Order: sequence, then C-alpha cells, then structure tokens
Amino acid sequence: MSQFEQTLSVVALCQQAKQASRQLAQLSEAAKNQLLLAMADALVDATEAILAANSRDMAGAREQQLSDAMQDRLLLTPARIAALADAVRQVARLPDPVGQIRQLAPRPNGIQVGKMRIPLGVIAMIYEARPNVTADAGALCLKSGNAVILRGGREALQSSLAIAAVMRRCLDDAGIHPSAITVMPVPDRELLLELLQQKDTVDLVIPRGGEGLIHFVSEHSRIPVIQHYKGICHLFIDKAADLQKGLDLLVNGKTQRPGVCNALETLLVHQDIAAQFLPLAAQTLADKQVQVYGCERALPYFAGGIAASAQQFDTEYLALALSVKVVDSFAGAVSHIEQHSSGHTEVICTQDISRAQRFLKQVNSAVVMVNASSRFSDGGELGLGAEIGISTSKLHAYGPMGLESLTTEKYIVIGDGQVRQ
Amino acid sequence: MSQFEQTLSVVALCQQAKQASRQLAQLSEAAKNQLLLAMADALVDATEAILAANSRDMAGAREQQLSDAMQDRLLLTPARIAALADAVRQVARLPDPVGQIRQLAPRPNGIQVGKMRIPLGVIAMIYEARPNVTADAGALCLKSGNAVILRGGREALQSSLAIAAVMRRCLDDAGIHPSAITVMPVPDRELLLELLQQKDTVDLVIPRGGEGLIHFVSEHSRIPVIQHYKGICHLFIDKAADLQKGLDLLVNGKTQRPGVCNALETLLVHQDIAAQFLPLAAQTLADKQVQVYGCERALPYFAGGIAASAQQFDTEYLALALSVKVVDSFAGAVSHIEQHSSGHTEVICTQDISRAQRFLKQVNSAVVMVNASSRFSDGGELGLGAEIGISTSKLHAYGPMGLESLTTEKYIVIGDGQVRQ
Repeated sequence: MSQFEQTLSVVALCQQAKQASRQLAQLSEAAKNQLLLAMADALVDATEAILAANSRDMAGAREQQLSDAMQDRLLLTPARIAALADAVRQVARLPDPVGQIRQLAPRPNGIQVGKMRIPLGVIAMIYEARPNVTADAGALCLKSGNAVILRGGREALQSSLAIAAVMRRCLDDAGIHPSAITVMPVPDRELLLELLQQKDTVDLVIPRGGEGLIHFVSEHSRIPVIQHYKGICHLFIDKAADLQKGLDLLVNGKTQRPGVCNALETLLVHQDIAAQFLPLAAQTLADKQVQVYGCERALPYFAGGIAASAQQFDTEYLALALSVKVVDSFAGAVSHIEQHSSGHTEVICTQDISRAQRFLKQVNSAVVMVNASSRFSDGGELGLGAEIGISTSKLHAYGPMGLESLTTEKYIVIGDGQVRQ
Repeated sequence: MSQFEQTLSVVALCQQAKQASRQLAQLSEAAKNQLLLAMADALVDATEAILAANSRDMAGAREQQLSDAMQDRLLLTPARIAALADAVRQVARLPDPVGQIRQLAPRPNGIQVGKMRIPLGVIAMIYEARPNVTADAGALCLKSGNAVILRGGREALQSSLAIAAVMRRCLDDAGIHPSAITVMPVPDRELLLELLQQKDTVDLVIPRGGEGLIHFVSEHSRIPVIQHYKGICHLFIDKAADLQKGLDLLVNGKTQRPGVCNALETLLVHQDIAAQFLPLAAQTLADKQVQVYGCERALPYFAGGIAASAQQFDTEYLALALSVKVVDSFAGAVSHIEQHSSGHTEVICTQDISRAQRFLKQVNSAVVMVNASSRFSDGGELGLGAEIGISTSKLHAYGPMGLESLTTEKYIVIGDGQVRQ
C-alpha cells in the first residue's frame, strides 16, 4: 500500500466511524441491549472461527518467541470465549447513561435549563496484545452510544479481527453501520500516527498498556488522550489504626496481585504506632517473601531489609517489594503522598473518624480510601461494571472509567418564546 | 532578561502557583467567600491606583493607534471598577462545588463508594486586552479552589497587574500564598510557549479570544486546552412553529448583539411554513437592516438578498448578516446543522412537543434550545453565575463553563478493613 493510500484509508475509516456514531447516538437503551445480547450469543456460536484466527496469532507468537506470560495473555480457549461473551452480556445489564437529564430547573424568566448526557462520538482504543479488549471496548462503546476504532497490537490482530467481524455482523443485521466497531487492519506505527491526527472525527483516545505506549500516544496525538501512568499506591497506618486491619490491608494490597497498578508500593507508618505495627508487618511480609526497602527508622524492624535510596519512593515495583517509611505525623504522611503519589490510589488505616475525614479531603488522588484495600480500585469493584480504562489525570475523567466517562453533557433549554433583554 | 532566566521564572511561577493551589484546595467555603468580599472592597478602595495604571495602558493604546472599540474595552472608570468589584461579590454568592459528594452507596462487600468534587489545581487563562477578565477569572478560580496564572494581552498589562496586586494583598492578609493569583509580568510569545509546556504544574489552559489565539494555544500546548472556536448558531423554524415566537427569536438572536458568539448566523425554515414565515421575516430583517444571504428557495422573499455561496453556511458573520435556507424536512434541518454547526448553540421554534423532544435528543451541540433565544447561551443566563469560558469540544466541559467546570471528581471509598478476595 502506498503512503497516500494508507493515509486515505485511515481518514476514511474515521469518517465512517463518525457517520456510524450519529446512528448509535440515537439508539434506545433497549435496542442497544438487544444488540449486545445478540453479539454475546454470536461470539459463542463463532467459537471455532475465533479459535482458528487465534491459532494463527499463537503461531506468530511462538515464532517471535514471546514470553510464556505474553502467550498466555494471547491465548483463547472455548472457556475464555464464553467468558468474553459473558462480559458483553454484563455490559447489557449496566444502566445506560445516555439521555439522562439532571438539574432541570427554571430561570427567573421562565426558561427551563438542564443538562442531558450524550455520547462523545468516536473513541479510539490503542492497546497491546489482549484480544478480550476488542470485545470489552466494543461493548462499552456501543452501550454508551459511541463508535470505536480499535488499534490493538500486531500479535493479537487475527483474533481481534475475528471477534470484531462477529460483532460487525450483528450490527449489520440490526441495520447499524458496521463501522461502529472498526479494527485497524494494519497495526503499524505510521498508521497509528495518522490515526492520532484525526481530531475532526475522533473525539477521544484511550491508550491501554505500558508507560512507553501511553507516552508515545500522548506525545503524538492531536486528539485528547486519557493518561494512565504508573500506580504508586500508598497505605498509611495512622497512629489510631486497628493493627489487624492494617496488616490485612497491607498483605492484600501488596501480595494479592503484585503486578497490577492498584497494588501497594509504599507503606507509611505513623511514628507513634511504628514500634507496635512494624514488628507485626515485618513478620507478615517475611512470610509472604516481600522484599522491604526501608527508611532509616523503619529498617531496624526488617531482617533482610535494604536501605531505601532516594528514588525508592518513586518506584512502582509491580513485584513482591515494598518501600516502608516512618512519618512524624498525619501531615507528614499527606505531604509524602503529595510528593510521591502518581495520583492513583491512597489508603488510610485509622479508627479515628476525624483523621479519616481529613485524609479523604486532603489527599487528591483519583481514589482515596479509608480502611479498604487498594486492590478495590478498579471499575468492577467500585461498581462501574466493566472498565474501559483508568485516568490518573484530572481532566474529563479521574480514576476508573465506566460508561459515564464515555459521555459528556450538553445543556438543554426549553422556553416559550423568551428573548434576551 | 536572558532566555535562561525567563525559562526559569516561568517554571518557578507555575511551581509557586501549584504550591498555593494545595492551600486553596483546603479552604472552607466561608473562608473563600470572606476573602472574595474583602477583595471586592479592596478593589473599590484602590480605584485611584487602578485608574492610574489603566491610564498608562490607555496612553500605550493611543500610541499604538488601537481602534476605538479596543480602547473602549481597555478603559476603566470608577463605575467600571465598581462593576468589576460587584462581579467578585456575585462569585462569593455562588454555591461552592468543592467537597460535594454524590452517589455514595454501599457495594455488596460493605465498602461505601462515592465521588467527591475537588479543584483541578492550577488554571492558566490566556486572554486578550480585557482588564476585567483578571478580576473575574481570579475570583472564579479562587472560589473553586484553584490557583490561576493570568496571561493577558500586553495592552492591558498595567491594569491587570494593578488589579491582581490588590487581590494578592488580600490573599496575603488572609495567610494565603499570593501565588494563588499570578499575572505573567512579561506577555511575550516565548514566555507563553514556556507556560504551555508546564504540564507537571498546570492542569488546564483556557484561552479566551479570537480563533487565531485559540489555534495558537491548542497547537503548542502540552497541557489540556479548552477550545472555543466560532459560534455558528442556527434557528430552525419548524412547520409547527408559532410565527410570532419565530420572529421574536430571529430578531433577538440576530440583532440584539450581533458581534458575539451566541448570535444567530443561520435561519433554517421548514418548506411547509416558508411561504408564511419568510415574508414576515423579510420585513422584520429589512427593518433591522440585516443583509440576507439566501438559498435558491429563500431568495425570492428577500428584496436585496444575495444568493448564498457554498461557504456561506460555514460563515460566522458577527455582523448584521444572516444565511437563510429552506429545508425539506425536520431531518433536513438536523442534517444541515450536523454538517455546518460549530457545536455552540442551536434553536428549534415549534409548538409540537414530539418534534421539540426529537430536536433536543438528536442535535448534539453544547446548548440545544426549544423556543428560546440563542442569546441565552451564556453562563450568566443559564444560571452558572459568571462564566470562565465556553467549550465547543466535548471533553471535560461542553458549553458555558461555570465553577463546576473548574473541578473534577475523585472516588472515595470507606471500608472497615475489607480486602479483595
């Protein structure tokens, strides 16, 4: 394909998606749910075809000697396809935000003013080698009335195309423009750059993947980008903490699934409770084989602990490792978090309601918790249903993004002929 | 000043503003209101000093031979300073969005999940030669808990510095870091470019001014930018319109203040009512000396009308001129708007409730109206109080932006030691 043809086709794909988005914006909730349920059934029915496409991806993965973990992420099985279809059915059960009206109230001159929720239009998802994102993102965008352009990794391309083909057939059967769900057929970098220029047709870019991908997309996009950088989540054991709750939150936050962004990376302990809490923490963390990097005051409690370097408190381990610091005061904990947090999730463990309230008010990360595990910081656990991404920047959306984050609000005004004086 | 020193000082200004923003985020509504009322009084008390600074700007304006309109916009008088102080008092009366909690509800495991509204942090306002923006933006940002960096035009610099100096003294008196309201002291382009790179400290850029300014800012900013391009607002006279209401909305929308973005630029008329409505419209528009650019079917009704060219329907006249088109149907009106709208404000005039509802649902501009003048499309008229800007792009804010648009929501979670299974 020549450069010119490539450019043309990205522009055309986006324009078609825009066209489809106008149709989607007008669908009733019932029509969207029916379509989603039909898609779920069709995905299960197409298990054989999807597995065949996936086996081509898997062959490529073996050829490229991808890691076992990568290959496992890529692999589809009949059970995984059933799970993927179930996720689509779950999206059908979520409430539809589109059309919701709030704050409708009269002005002194009698006009009624309110806000109505509407879809954003066209969403571009940029992601790595996870075929399930294709179905998830397709379903979430459809339910929120948006068209989606899916630009997944090359490794999962055949699987993604097969999944999307099934969903597009369902769109077509329902009389909806199949461009509502579009997979970029050539996942090379130049076409991605082209896609990121289409600000007249694409309304939002959501990159999901490593920091490198997100930086690349943010750097080159003319379209607004949801940014989700690393998660350096803190647990602060306040002087009024319940020690057992503190230990539970520590172990769950650090060890239940250390490789994800809502796992704990730093433990802060109030100096008044350090001598009680740290010996228990040391025992528990040792049992779980967590490597501790401690500040001067924390280190003596941890056999095998390593002195924390200056960068330690800005490190996202994504592994069984933890930074530990003793702080002088509540304010010291808040200011440490202010300085080192990535804006993802912070937890206080305290039985003192005033200090809990202060923490909720003063810490402005996307998710701020009292006596709950940082591992609850995801869309499903917070009750959003499936999650399309998570934002650690404050514009438009902050924190786990559900259907509402794929919409915006317009003003509606209902008068009876009023004019301005 | 060397380039290096300039760069350093922009970075330092932004860092100081960030520091101040942390303090502002924690102020109570009462403290903020008290501060705003003190500022309003102090502005009136400082009338003489502000007028002296303004006279230096006016001297420069005469030297540069700015237009009379520009000079008038720049001019301050005791009455105008009193009005500016009153606007600050009005901001004190607006409800404070910060700290509002919504949707707090338990999850099945007993954790409570909700959303709490918080300030964005640091706002950069880029604007042209209007000294009143300095006080307005300072007050709105303060009330919403944000620090603001004001980068106004060179023409109004002395006035802006004098106004900001008064407000900063009030901050200082209240023990707040005066960097909460910062005026860029050297309004040259290189420093603006520096400012637009400060994504680690500045959270949002709001440009207010002509299309050139907004394009320049959007093009060069690494920080999210609120975009407000032109306003091509439509009035659609439906076949079920009340003719008198239609005429009132037309005259008010087009002639009450033609030079602003919420003035009408295009009149669409349903073909079934064209023969009744257009003769009346022609008479009224002629009385008001409005130049009409008509489509083939509309033109015969307008003595002195000019045939509309292809670009006419994408033109923002900002003057006593109007594009007029007869459309075949309701759908024809909606699709014309879809194609030519700038996403600002659209109005339907109809007595048919079904058609009114369809218009509200199908047209996705920032403000969609039934039987009300497009001139109501501003923050004050819609009940937001003062307005910090208006967004014609859908991300983060869409339409007139009040205090709420200067905030975001974080998630709060309150548990009792729950961990994830």
